[in-house]
Amino acid sequence: MENSEEQQKYRVRKLEISDKGKGFIELLQQLSVCDSVSDKEFEDRFRDLDVLGDDHVIGVIEDEASGKIIATGSVFIEKKFLRNCGKVGHIEDVVVDSSIRGKHLGKRIIKFLTEHARSMGCYKVILDCSVENKAFYEKCGFQQKSVQMAMYFP
Amino acid sequence: MENSEEQQKYRVRKLEISDKGKGFIELLQQLSVCDSVSDKEFEDRFRDLDVLGDDHVIGVIEDEASGKIIATGSVFIEKKFLRNCGKVGHIEDVVVDSSIRGKHLGKRIIKFLTEHARSMGCYKVILDCSVENKAFYEKCGFQQKSVQMAMYFP
Repeated sequence: MENSEEQQKYRVRKLEISDKGKGFIELLQQLSVCDSVSDKEFEDRFRDLDVLGDDHVIGVIEDEASGKIIATGSVFIEKKFLRNCGKVGHIEDVVVDSSIRGKHLGKRIIKFLTEHARSMGCYKVILDCSVENKAFYEKCGFQQKSVQMAMYFP
Repeated sequence: MENSEEQQKYRVRKLEISDKGKGFIELLQQLSVCDSVSDKEFEDRFRDLDVLGDDHVIGVIEDEASGKIIATGSVFIEKKFLRNCGKVGHIEDVVVDSSIRGKHLGKRIIKFLTEHARSMGCYKVILDCSVENKAFYEKCGFQQKSVQMAMYFP
């Protein structure tokens, strides 16, 4: 059991426009290809997502000591006709700073995102992951459902 | 090689609000749980998606002879910070009327959706499918990438 001090220290909040200066893009670079993003590009994309409101939320954890973003993940809400006009949460781009381990930051991010999807009335939340990360998501309460297929454009 | 008559006959177009009366919901019921949807619910959801414009498109094929919707699939565009503020197309809810086979309607739907994602500047398009449907998507140009995990809310 963690104490409330740790809970407070590593609380998840929504991405803010000032987080670019706190290493948000550098954190994403640990996950996948992401060249440097200009301030203008960042602000434009931030506003693109901001207009979606609760339908696209990015959670972050800021390390209070260093002022750096050390974990993040996003969820967007898909509106369907299926399931009686149901909604599905899609979790994407979950990453925890590789230098910080054993603080359950990934679990905190996932909990924040799944709770958001639940509060939005989704009937399920889904994500794609590598076979290596399957066990982590199982611990978070997910089950394997199917396979993910991708087509990359040149 | 199919002739241009077939191409014209089975062309994919965007969902229209009048498609509820053409069996669109009944077609979705072949895919997953979907009770009857009232006209009001349908129109509300149609408008929810309509405001997203090109960021959420539902393609349908209407059988000209019967006036029924016989195939559908959707794609929505996720805006990321990753990949230099890249975009990803997510394909969902692809279904072809079980009574109509051998017309390559599924392939037409997938082509329509992937071309839309490409035209929107996505760097990739992804979807989740059962192991049984993997071969179909491979024929469409997709490759298996990872596994899909899901959490259902009670």
